[in-house]
Amino acid sequence: MPATYNYEYFNVTFPEQYVAHVEINRPEKMNAFIEIMWLNLEQIIKKLSRDSDVRAIVLTGAGDRAYTAGLDVQAASQGTIGGKGKVADVAREMNKVRQHVLEFQDCITALERCDKPIITALHGYSFGLAIDMSVTCDIRVCSADTRFSVKEVDIGIAADIGTLTRLPKAVGNQSWVKEVCLTARIWSAEEALRVGYVSHIFPDKAAAVKGAFGIAKLIAEKSPVATLGTKNIINFSKDRRVEDGLIYTAVWNGGMIQTKDTKDALLSGLQKRKPTFEKL
Amino acid sequence: MPATYNYEYFNVTFPEQYVAHVEINRPEKMNAFIEIMWLNLEQIIKKLSRDSDVRAIVLTGAGDRAYTAGLDVQAASQGTIGGKGKVADVAREMNKVRQHVLEFQDCITALERCDKPIITALHGYSFGLAIDMSVTCDIRVCSADTRFSVKEVDIGIAADIGTLTRLPKAVGNQSWVKEVCLTARIWSAEEALRVGYVSHIFPDKAAAVKGAFGIAKLIAEKSPVATLGTKNIINFSKDRRVEDGLIYTAVWNGGMIQTKDTKDALLSGLQKRKPTFEKL
Amino acid sequence: MPATYNYEYFNVTFPEQYVAHVEINRPEKMNAFIEIMWLNLEQIIKKLSRDSDVRAIVLTGAGDRAYTAGLDVQAASQGTIGGKGKVADVAREMNKVRQHVLEFQDCITALERCDKPIITALHGYSFGLAIDMSVTCDIRVCSADTRFSVKEVDIGIAADIGTLTRLPKAVGNQSWVKEVCLTARIWSAEEALRVGYVSHIFPDKAAAVKGAFGIAKLIAEKSPVATLGTKNIINFSKDRRVEDGLIYTAVWNGGMIQTKDTKDALLSGLQKRKPTFEKL
Amino acid sequence: MPATYNYEYFNVTFPEQYVAHVEINRPEKMNAFIEIMWLNLEQIIKKLSRDSDVRAIVLTGAGDRAYTAGLDVQAASQGTIGGKGKVADVAREMNKVRQHVLEFQDCITALERCDKPIITALHGYSFGLAIDMSVTCDIRVCSADTRFSVKEVDIGIAADIGTLTRLPKAVGNQSWVKEVCLTARIWSAEEALRVGYVSHIFPDKAAAVKGAFGIAKLIAEKSPVATLGTKNIINFSKDRRVEDGLIYTAVWNGGMIQTKDTKDALLSGLQKRKPTFEKL
Amino acid sequence: MPATYNYEYFNVTFPEQYVAHVEINRPEKMNAFIEIMWLNLEQIIKKLSRDSDVRAIVLTGAGDRAYTAGLDVQAASQGTIGGKGKVADVAREMNKVRQHVLEFQDCITALERCDKPIITALHGYSFGLAIDMSVTCDIRVCSADTRFSVKEVDIGIAADIGTLTRLPKAVGNQSWVKEVCLTARIWSAEEALRVGYVSHIFPDKAAAVKGAFGIAKLIAEKSPVATLGTKNIINFSKDRRVEDGLIYTAVWNGGMIQTKDTKDALLSGLQKRKPTFEKL
Amino acid sequence: MPATYNYEYFNVTFPEQYVAHVEINRPEKMNAFIEIMWLNLEQIIKKLSRDSDVRAIVLTGAGDRAYTAGLDVQAASQGTIGGKGKVADVAREMNKVRQHVLEFQDCITALERCDKPIITALHGYSFGLAIDMSVTCDIRVCSADTRFSVKEVDIGIAADIGTLTRLPKAVGNQSWVKEVCLTARIWSAEEALRVGYVSHIFPDKAAAVKGAFGIAKLIAEKSPVATLGTKNIINFSKDRRVEDGLIYTAVWNGGMIQTKDTKDALLSGLQKRKPTFEKL
Repeated sequence: MPATYNYEYFNVTFPEQYVAHVEINRPEKMNAFIEIMWLNLEQIIKKLSRDSDVRAIVLTGAGDRAYTAGLDVQAASQGTIGGKGKVADVAREMNKVRQHVLEFQDCITALERCDKPIITALHGYSFGLAIDMSVTCDIRVCSADTRFSVKEVDIGIAADIGTLTRLPKAVGNQSWVKEVCLTARIWSAEEALRVGYVSHIFPDKAAAVKGAFGIAKLIAEKSPVATLGTKNIINFSKDRRVEDGLIYTAVWNGGMIQTKDTKDALLSGLQKRKPTFEKL
Repeated sequence: MPATYNYEYFNVTFPEQYVAHVEINRPEKMNAFIEIMWLNLEQIIKKLSRDSDVRAIVLTGAGDRAYTAGLDVQAASQGTIGGKGKVADVAREMNKVRQHVLEFQDCITALERCDKPIITALHGYSFGLAIDMSVTCDIRVCSADTRFSVKEVDIGIAADIGTLTRLPKAVGNQSWVKEVCLTARIWSAEEALRVGYVSHIFPDKAAAVKGAFGIAKLIAEKSPVATLGTKNIINFSKDRRVEDGLIYTAVWNGGMIQTKDTKDALLSGLQKRKPTFEKL
Repeated sequence: MPATYNYEYFNVTFPEQYVAHVEINRPEKMNAFIEIMWLNLEQIIKKLSRDSDVRAIVLTGAGDRAYTAGLDVQAASQGTIGGKGKVADVAREMNKVRQHVLEFQDCITALERCDKPIITALHGYSFGLAIDMSVTCDIRVCSADTRFSVKEVDIGIAADIGTLTRLPKAVGNQSWVKEVCLTARIWSAEEALRVGYVSHIFPDKAAAVKGAFGIAKLIAEKSPVATLGTKNIINFSKDRRVEDGLIYTAVWNGGMIQTKDTKDALLSGLQKRKPTFEKL
Repeated sequence: MPATYNYEYFNVTFPEQYVAHVEINRPEKMNAFIEIMWLNLEQIIKKLSRDSDVRAIVLTGAGDRAYTAGLDVQAASQGTIGGKGKVADVAREMNKVRQHVLEFQDCITALERCDKPIITALHGYSFGLAIDMSVTCDIRVCSADTRFSVKEVDIGIAADIGTLTRLPKAVGNQSWVKEVCLTARIWSAEEALRVGYVSHIFPDKAAAVKGAFGIAKLIAEKSPVATLGTKNIINFSKDRRVEDGLIYTAVWNGGMIQTKDTKDALLSGLQKRKPTFEKL
Repeated sequence: MPATYNYEYFNVTFPEQYVAHVEINRPEKMNAFIEIMWLNLEQIIKKLSRDSDVRAIVLTGAGDRAYTAGLDVQAASQGTIGGKGKVADVAREMNKVRQHVLEFQDCITALERCDKPIITALHGYSFGLAIDMSVTCDIRVCSADTRFSVKEVDIGIAADIGTLTRLPKAVGNQSWVKEVCLTARIWSAEEALRVGYVSHIFPDKAAAVKGAFGIAKLIAEKSPVATLGTKNIINFSKDRRVEDGLIYTAVWNGGMIQTKDTKDALLSGLQKRKPTFEKL
Repeated sequence: MPATYNYEYFNVTFPEQYVAHVEINRPEKMNAFIEIMWLNLEQIIKKLSRDSDVRAIVLTGAGDRAYTAGLDVQAASQGTIGGKGKVADVAREMNKVRQHVLEFQDCITALERCDKPIITALHGYSFGLAIDMSVTCDIRVCSADTRFSVKEVDIGIAADIGTLTRLPKAVGNQSWVKEVCLTARIWSAEEALRVGYVSHIFPDKAAAVKGAFGIAKLIAEKSPVATLGTKNIINFSKDRRVEDGLIYTAVWNGGMIQTKDTKDALLSGLQKRKPTFEKL
């Protein structure tokens, strides 16, 4: 029921069978985030995670200039960041900020926990929250003009919505991670490919979005039992020890392998035809 | 005693001093694996691990077409995968599959636990089990024609012999890991080098095998006390915290450094001659 | 008070505001380390960590030939390594070595724990201890002529000052890590960039040092509250699970975000001027 | 605003300053749980967690016969447990159950995550879910007539709402944990005290509830900054390593200790009067 | 097929339906262990783990004097412990001992990994290996005359077959753990009950064995799907974090709850009759 | 050289062979701690840890009234706790407190890391820091009149020197841990024994100190290789997973078992005489 996905700052559409498109839609402000946006994003992703008509999700930003310029600093400066000047007690203010940060993080973590793979296509300005958010996606591609930056030190804070935790685990060059996080310098698409932040660079935004859809469609054609397990086991394993990943996999497949999709897929393979799989 | 390494589907030879060669030998079936093969591979590796005449192992696939095309699907489809149609109870079947997967995983994990470094040279079709297996090896090289694929989603299952757990820990680009695991697309030798799955590409299979032997011989010339410790400490550390790796290293070397190899190696270094080291 | 940083084998200077320069200074011996050197390095780094006039540190090696050729083997061979021939009991000797290794490791770990980011510029021979040491630095750059090597297996031991634990966590190509650690082969600057050991290559040593200073100055201009948090949270997160990194970040910023630096940085941003920040 | 706590199966009252009382209220069914109850319990606890008028929570069961007899088996047998007979695919059903169990667990985990300490007083039948639920509370007391049981094996399943994970971490006798979980035998109040499942036994239900309120009032008189930190740090530490608990504590108190409560508490102590603390 | 359980030093019998009895049988030497014994014990337990006629295992020691007096020191002193005087190199000997200890540990760990619950009844001398072994069992009971001791420091070594790792995790009093491990003093049955090492004390050996069988029979009457899951999930959870235990449980039960045992157990409960369950 | 242990607030003596006695000596202030005391305690313990004339340490408090009443609140209130009123920036003050807490924790952690077992005898008032400190000791005994309390919530803070992290891991009753930490209520010697905080209760202080010495002497008679390994392996294992404890043990004993102490101990055992062991 696509009708239930009406949000002011997001366009949620279903352009391909089993593929949802979530577009951040505040282009006049370079898709900068205000609080309602991350709350809504969490809602959208949680719904899509359970929507049996969806097998893959593409996340993009509207407009030519920016994927997202990050947090709307003007709005934020009237909120928690920088304090409110009126709270009498450091500890009570600290607890309020702590709870606020945890809630904000939870919204973004919803992307990581989503049962369906999320492919994101970055372009233009991709600052601050753009990294917190894209780093939780499963697959990242970008256009050649993307300008990435972990911008937070430039406003006097350590990034707190996940970048500092997840970026070191997403790419292989730890020297580079520290450099871009400590200097807030902009990095390019080629650099992103070299250090392993993206899988592919496309010439422009349109191509990048199309590329993301290509991957999404490929995934959406597979058995949803197989792709659910693949994302779930990688996520479980990545943050734990090898032995745990193996034990968990054995229990997972102990049940999941009893699916009829396996038989259908094997048969289709032999018969050289494309299998269709029931909804999850 | 090379005589004890007689297996139908594996050639085990000792072409260089201290270097064993294990060749997967079912080329007429693109080296596809049937159950006896992973059971035998475990036995071979466990024997080599304790064989004091061996200091490094090279693992390759026979024939020109494939390192291995993965699991022999036809054989497997008559076994556990896809169910047997006759088991009355989901839980009892689940436990059987779980035990089977754990046993299969254990066979492949034997490569990781082997006391001797394993260098593998991939070529041609390297699908499914080819990744589960090569990702547990210490060093990977490949020929330019290698076609890699995490193939399992194409038969409706999540890969369960280790790829989903180990691949994210073997390379630095997590976007790429998710992409190839969720799409089952083929990736090339250059891509493997760029994302960090292999250390070297060689023009063809012969060169790749030769290259693997070059590395193996280099390792076999070192003190076996030193190479044992190096592999053991890296493996222990990789899956644990920095502090634990350091503490473990201090205990390990507390005893191992009392070896006379250190003295011999230092002396040989000063005298510009090649040291020889006793068997482990 | 630069006057308190007088050490025989290290030049400690303050060439830029808030930037300290630590130069390993035993060029006549290719900056090879003797015990007093790692003890002094620990002292220097611990002092700089608490020195409120310092916001970034550059670590380099004096002379053209070597960053450091590693441990001074001649000196060491008269010490613990290789045994002393006179200790009657293996266990008692083992405990002595264990304690010695733990103390040595602690000196090098001081770089990792330093509250201020450390940028190191490698050049020329960078063997053995050069890797143990540079791998604990936050950011690594090098000159085109750098010759890196994990040299320890060549003297019959497993590296025990941290390389085997930290190198697999610093770069993304695990096949390459095992290869260079097991073979002791030299690797080049380009290889270091490709596998992700350094962020940048510069044509020569002078340019590399200048490049390191460029990064250091950029960091030193930021709010020290922001850079402290950034390094601290990355280090905490890298070695722990995602959930822990996020929870820790929320508590950290709960207090730290109450700093006036945030307000100053935001205001400066709007006013297009460079903010100045109070000492930590 | 107590008015917002209206739930069919729970009485939520505020009998003492800063102390909330949550009473499970389905005594005619021995307080057996149906789905709406755990969903509501989660809501109640989450609200109380953020309610600044609350500093401690007492959780009890209405009626004389049971704290709770556990899951309402009759209701459940019409739901997921035991299957529905009509789902065609094992994998799809498995995923549905998995999601259902995760959601149910989350409701109960809300007690553990609640910012305010929860003291629970058990009495009479305390079976199945009674253990899943009470084991997540901070402090447990019971009446002498309490009959505890991890009942799930008697309905052919492993307990899946947390008991098997949390009970081994709540008490010290692991032999006893396995015994009561594997046999489903009833255990008494004295046994609960001996193995460390409760802190205190009271002669009857009324005394147990009164005892729980005594502890709650004592806690409610303390600085809410201090009790928040105490629960939070114990929970963080219990599930992690000593080093992590210490580091986390230092960051937590770095900010929290700047509260004026400390000064007030110290002064009150010197002046032998009872301090009052502002709301959190 | 009980016929396949013939071992010189173990009596393996099946005195009750679904209950196996493993008796250590070297009473003339106080059941002291020689190498063949732990190798055989591992084989026996692995067979029983997969034997679908077995649902619970009782482990006891033959004779009145001892459960086991531990390692047969006389035999061992002719083996590895204490060295052999003839090995030229500390490192090579160290590796041999390390491998030997790992293999010995693996034999004992087989008890922990056994799919079927193991109830052990201790009596008389229960020294050294008696603790390594009983601490891996699921449930421990003892006779009033049991004399426990972690004896290893008295022969100049740290216990290395698991006691020092598992005892701190089996009981709640860490001060007591260190005391008995560091002093090697004997502790009594009452002390064992107080600190939580056993669940029950029985007046004499016969009663303890009978008590163990009572527990075993109770377990053997339950659904084998339920008891398998209960042991498996407790073991997984105990050594990991709460969150991991919960996630794992949800996957486990996602499949296992589809068993018909649940329906049978529920129905039997309603009909007040004893259910029977198919073999696993 | 006992002469080097001169400290104003500690008496360090050597009343028995290989046994050191550290007495907290500020009885006129109920042994309340001021900063110099924890700094000195760390120094003392670190020296004793390396002093080859010491094999066990007894820690007690001078005077009849208190083991220690905890932190000297009057002194502390002029220091960090409660703030200084003059620091302009929350973040900078937070970092100062954080560093101070980490340094204070390190002093107390020195007891845990000490190579020699520490037996502590508590008596009288044992408040606040008394718990932080005694919980890091290896073995705890107390006199019947001991009055324990985790006092910190009464001064408006969460305990930050280790109690909240270590107490849940030292005893088995988690309900009790939360209760005493959240209420700051006093608990008695019997309660301490029941929940597992101490191993023994003695009638009065003199008997408790004598009891502690009894244990210390017993330990001091054992091989120092064996007791070092026993403490070290228990500490390593307690905070890690079972598998890690086992692997670590195998490496440790691989070297340590080559000691001649084993042979001496075995021989002495056969000859029924007391062995003597060389210094570590």
